[in-house]
Amino acid sequence: MALSTRYQQIRQETRSFCKHLTIEDFSIQVVQFASPAKWHLAHTTWFFETFILKTYSDNYKVFDDDFNFLFNSYYNNVGSRILQANRGNMSRPSIDKVFEYRSYVDKHMITLLNTTTNKRLLDLVTLGLNHEQQHQELLVTDVKYMLGHNPLFPVFNADYNLVNDYNINNALVTIKAGNYTIGHQGDDFCYDNELGVHQVYLNDFEIHNHLVTNGEYLEFMNSGAYSDFNLWLDEGWTWVNQNNIKAPLYWHKKDDEWYQYTLAGLQKVDPLALVSHVSFFEAQAFAEWKGMRLPTEFEWEIASQKFEWGKRWEWTNSAYLPYPNFVKENGAVGEYNGKFMSSKMVLRGASVATSKNHSRPTYRNFFNPAQRWQYTGIRLVK
Amino acid sequence: MALSTRYQQIRQETRSFCKHLTIEDFSIQVVQFASPAKWHLAHTTWFFETFILKTYSDNYKVFDDDFNFLFNSYYNNVGSRILQANRGNMSRPSIDKVFEYRSYVDKHMITLLNTTTNKRLLDLVTLGLNHEQQHQELLVTDVKYMLGHNPLFPVFNADYNLVNDYNINNALVTIKAGNYTIGHQGDDFCYDNELGVHQVYLNDFEIHNHLVTNGEYLEFMNSGAYSDFNLWLDEGWTWVNQNNIKAPLYWHKKDDEWYQYTLAGLQKVDPLALVSHVSFFEAQAFAEWKGMRLPTEFEWEIASQKFEWGKRWEWTNSAYLPYPNFVKENGAVGEYNGKFMSSKMVLRGASVATSKNHSRPTYRNFFNPAQRWQYTGIRLVK
Amino acid sequence: MALSTRYQQIRQETRSFCKHLTIEDFSIQVVQFASPAKWHLAHTTWFFETFILKTYSDNYKVFDDDFNFLFNSYYNNVGSRILQANRGNMSRPSIDKVFEYRSYVDKHMITLLNTTTNKRLLDLVTLGLNHEQQHQELLVTDVKYMLGHNPLFPVFNADYNLVNDYNINNALVTIKAGNYTIGHQGDDFCYDNELGVHQVYLNDFEIHNHLVTNGEYLEFMNSGAYSDFNLWLDEGWTWVNQNNIKAPLYWHKKDDEWYQYTLAGLQKVDPLALVSHVSFFEAQAFAEWKGMRLPTEFEWEIASQKFEWGKRWEWTNSAYLPYPNFVKENGAVGEYNGKFMSSKMVLRGASVATSKNHSRPTYRNFFNPAQRWQYTGIRLVK
Amino acid sequence: MALSTRYQQIRQETRSFCKHLTIEDFSIQVVQFASPAKWHLAHTTWFFETFILKTYSDNYKVFDDDFNFLFNSYYNNVGSRILQANRGNMSRPSIDKVFEYRSYVDKHMITLLNTTTNKRLLDLVTLGLNHEQQHQELLVTDVKYMLGHNPLFPVFNADYNLVNDYNINNALVTIKAGNYTIGHQGDDFCYDNELGVHQVYLNDFEIHNHLVTNGEYLEFMNSGAYSDFNLWLDEGWTWVNQNNIKAPLYWHKKDDEWYQYTLAGLQKVDPLALVSHVSFFEAQAFAEWKGMRLPTEFEWEIASQKFEWGKRWEWTNSAYLPYPNFVKENGAVGEYNGKFMSSKMVLRGASVATSKNHSRPTYRNFFNPAQRWQYTGIRLVK
Repeated sequence: MALSTRYQQIRQETRSFCKHLTIEDFSIQVVQFASPAKWHLAHTTWFFETFILKTYSDNYKVFDDDFNFLFNSYYNNVGSRILQANRGNMSRPSIDKVFEYRSYVDKHMITLLNTTTNKRLLDLVTLGLNHEQQHQELLVTDVKYMLGHNPLFPVFNADYNLVNDYNINNALVTIKAGNYTIGHQGDDFCYDNELGVHQVYLNDFEIHNHLVTNGEYLEFMNSGAYSDFNLWLDEGWTWVNQNNIKAPLYWHKKDDEWYQYTLAGLQKVDPLALVSHVSFFEAQAFAEWKGMRLPTEFEWEIASQKFEWGKRWEWTNSAYLPYPNFVKENGAVGEYNGKFMSSKMVLRGASVATSKNHSRPTYRNFFNPAQRWQYTGIRLVK
Repeated sequence: MALSTRYQQIRQETRSFCKHLTIEDFSIQVVQFASPAKWHLAHTTWFFETFILKTYSDNYKVFDDDFNFLFNSYYNNVGSRILQANRGNMSRPSIDKVFEYRSYVDKHMITLLNTTTNKRLLDLVTLGLNHEQQHQELLVTDVKYMLGHNPLFPVFNADYNLVNDYNINNALVTIKAGNYTIGHQGDDFCYDNELGVHQVYLNDFEIHNHLVTNGEYLEFMNSGAYSDFNLWLDEGWTWVNQNNIKAPLYWHKKDDEWYQYTLAGLQKVDPLALVSHVSFFEAQAFAEWKGMRLPTEFEWEIASQKFEWGKRWEWTNSAYLPYPNFVKENGAVGEYNGKFMSSKMVLRGASVATSKNHSRPTYRNFFNPAQRWQYTGIRLVK
Repeated sequence: MALSTRYQQIRQETRSFCKHLTIEDFSIQVVQFASPAKWHLAHTTWFFETFILKTYSDNYKVFDDDFNFLFNSYYNNVGSRILQANRGNMSRPSIDKVFEYRSYVDKHMITLLNTTTNKRLLDLVTLGLNHEQQHQELLVTDVKYMLGHNPLFPVFNADYNLVNDYNINNALVTIKAGNYTIGHQGDDFCYDNELGVHQVYLNDFEIHNHLVTNGEYLEFMNSGAYSDFNLWLDEGWTWVNQNNIKAPLYWHKKDDEWYQYTLAGLQKVDPLALVSHVSFFEAQAFAEWKGMRLPTEFEWEIASQKFEWGKRWEWTNSAYLPYPNFVKENGAVGEYNGKFMSSKMVLRGASVATSKNHSRPTYRNFFNPAQRWQYTGIRLVK
Repeated sequence: MALSTRYQQIRQETRSFCKHLTIEDFSIQVVQFASPAKWHLAHTTWFFETFILKTYSDNYKVFDDDFNFLFNSYYNNVGSRILQANRGNMSRPSIDKVFEYRSYVDKHMITLLNTTTNKRLLDLVTLGLNHEQQHQELLVTDVKYMLGHNPLFPVFNADYNLVNDYNINNALVTIKAGNYTIGHQGDDFCYDNELGVHQVYLNDFEIHNHLVTNGEYLEFMNSGAYSDFNLWLDEGWTWVNQNNIKAPLYWHKKDDEWYQYTLAGLQKVDPLALVSHVSFFEAQAFAEWKGMRLPTEFEWEIASQKFEWGKRWEWTNSAYLPYPNFVKENGAVGEYNGKFMSSKMVLRGASVATSKNHSRPTYRNFFNPAQRWQYTGIRLVK
């Protein structure tokens, strides 16, 4: 597909999601890590303006000089910016203005794409589109977080529950010990953190082709797991107690029955559906309780050819660290991934909220071990 | 004026202010103490619904059962409520719904007012209207706080600067020592904290008939006052240093010149205009620097017959405490004033943002000594 | 008594208290507001060295140049100092060194006192001795706080319980309305905050000649008072909930019986003894529960001639503010009292821990309304 | 050496270090992570009492019932305990009592050791002695932290500087790609986290046989590294700015010259000596600045046969995670290591403060990436 067509398609997908949002929904920020929808819409646009149009589009006139300050996320190389926690403080610019900004940048981007063959530019556009897709997933999870913390539990879209996914069958996949090749190969797009193809020695292991279900997780809860320190990492135990954690995020007990907030409103927890919105600490404790363990990211990458994946981001027991030959790009784009390589755990796979065509077996997602607002799940290894 | 007419007029004034707000402006909360406009609009309406319609209007059907939880401010007697800091987390209900709520309640209120002669009910309506007027002032100051913390410094209304007020002349008013009568007399409406008429003995004192200007305050700043601990109360000095205070709220230095954010946008500080948005700590330090002092609330009340007032809430050196015969009302209405009688200082007068007919010489306003987002000013005593 | 004799006697009293302390006891700091005994011993000595010997003793050689930094409490005029919270971080200088410091300064002070007639100097010595006496009381309460937060509940001195004081009889004292004179008169020593003799108009009131007992306080507790928001000031209610307050400081429930930590160890609460270690918030809530109120500091001062006092510091409902003609002294000594005049409540009287001869009816003690580690009590007014 | 002899020798080494401590030094806690010496002395003793004497010594009478609460560190299986931050709040029991406790437990331990051949018991004693040795190192670093934060910078022992270690020569060690065996082999003591011998594939790499010096680190500082965000991980950059970090821990600039606090007092920084007291973030930024990187713990383990080590704990770029076949022991002893496997980085080697015979190439030390109070250093890989 021509990049210009792909550009328009992906940008349009972002817009489509927004048709269920009210004007007020676009602006609110409930917690530091979940940004307002308006900010996502502007920030992804700012990415194209800053890294492409300003450099490659002759005579390009910046849409609004203030937007660099407002919509830079974390690129120190591109100047100062508002604090992440304050993204919800801006009632102005309005959402209309932000949509204008998108149209303005889109018009210039399409013109540029229709005339250029510059490889570096096209690579940056591909990066920008992958970036937009990442933010499409964050749009889903951040909107869910905002509405899920509204005491009214509003319905975002009655047809868009996103949590009722099921295992097809339950089996163990066996992998033999030996050296395996890890990392992205080929010419397709991937992030810099997937590069540096290298050998990893794996021991024999067996891994589930299925994910943990709500029913299994309820057993874990009912066994008293949230009060049994022996199951938890020290940090996890502190987290459970300081935050009074008793169940996955969005779960609420009413009249002795468990419900969960979904984008289609509050719904009964289906014991057969895959558990979602658990932290690494919960995933690890669950595995401990089962007498099993989480896979490493390398085990996952090798075994993933033998099972279905893509419904939940799957916590691994690997810390997010550079591959042996990791090379950070120069300048602002080099801040994309590398600088986050401490205190985070790797998640592999993709989720129901991940954009189409934005997943691959070598993809390395990463979050702090306590984070739960993504559609995260648990796969076990023996 | 008939109470029904007065009701409609005051409720309409609230609405008028809102015509300059965008939909996004209604919902944002930037800081715990400044609530979203949407919340003010709903909360004042909830007050009439909760304390009047539910009790006095036969067969009244509550507009929405969830609203009691969402729009109760601090009345423990009326049930649980969302935290003050979370008032900005609610993108739903929409502002349209809140305006519907207002119309619904207004309709029932007017019907009720046109048919009742119940004294207790009418008193509660008068309380509710005074309550609405208090929130009208908070609407102004909270909107200013929100827009004033937007890096774009948006213009709310170019004709509505609110800070360029001037002294007419400068003179000393002399009051003779003796016993004076303090507190609200007569049958007009007043809050319970103004009642309990009592004698207070005052010494001789002289008080300015004018307020401190920006020019005088600039002299204080330029003398190095913000770094001279000898001028400050211990708490004030801690406040200055922990918050890195260098000037009144909303003041910004650009190219060696002082500007201040106003509802008409960023404007040069006019040295002849009355200083505004200072804390009690700043007012006290200024007085110390001048070798003068702030009045007590009793001195102010007695002397106020001899000077003009009404442009700035004037910090006194009186703590907010009960008058000798203060009696708290029973039930929720008793929570209106009495429970706040600790750690707050009294302000007397009124400001440019105070609603018409919502001021009198006995009115006791009160805030924490560090608060600055009201239109506060300084009057000195010798 | 000659000042030189008085000096030696008061300094010796400080030392006497210390004979029950172990070396470790001298150095520990458990909470910011309660300083280590070692610090008190050095700081009171530093006061004499800094304000008297350095100025008035010819050729005086400072004992140790570092001590000004270590043992200045809050006098900004005398230079920088360690943070109050870090007073317990200093294992060196040793307690032996601090006693050496005391002896060194005492030797020079006595020499000076035996030869001088300088009025200003003698006034400063009197101030220093009163200052030492204030710290004698803090020594008692700070040591109690430290040992009372040791899970072993160690006995400091089995003969030194300090909490079993009783009312002699229960009666109402009646005061007639009228103008009364407030403030210290005569030539005896008093603090600057007691000066500024002035008239205050008081209404008729009746005041208890007795203090609230543990038994009465238990009734209050058993009535559910700590969960009834209607009894509490808003700040008090927040304080109760944030700190999970259920009883006075030092009270512990064991096998359904109330005990309290005393300097003689853990002992059963005696229902006839005077309640101690309550905050202003608790005193106020108790009065509210009784349908009574706390006295103002002026009512207390006038009525105190008609009742016994001196067992508990008695919370008044007066904020700590300057008297009409309050004049702050110049320089460091001016920081003694004046700069604390915000957000504090006045306590009147004296406690069992107050040094002999360090109390008078005009004495104005002051603490934050939540503080409880002094021997505080409750007197009621009708 | 007989275990009984070894027991006495190691216990005596702990005591020897203490001869330079004053009584006050034993009790103070300056920061949560650095415990008082008294606590270390008691806690290591408690370990023997709890895990050995209580189980294996017939009729053993516990020294003091309260000590389990006071001196348990983090073993949830052994009951509740005081908070780590409160270890410095206990002036009682006295240091004399703690030395009595040591003698009492030693007497019983020696009796037991002289009569038993129980393998499980002997293993636990070996664990207890290794545990004691770990706390010997913590004694050194915690005492340094306490005295190093005393504004007097006291000399602990003028002959015990501990920071002037030097490289012997500078060379690159080359390791060839291939599979290598990782983990502890043989019957000697090791911790459970070193077990699970497994293969790891390593790429070709070159590693310095020497550590970074103060001189090189000064160059890094002088190049402006602490203000260049491009060198730092995102978390590291936040850490630098929130804590205003400008140099390694204990470094102080005086008259334009760098000094560092050592246990022998404040001394000039020797540019030829090995840098010490740097965080992982600083180590990583330094490597980035050099265009090099830190080794993984596996690279370190394999290469360590080819260079000298033992002067500094060396930060690796490996997160602390379980080895493939890691098995947690049952009960309290299982809490020793496994539960800390999140958010920590591995350090390899040993330091000048590490006890004799308490190091080996497979030893996995671990700390949070911001910690600096250990004698940490930097080795680079190309």
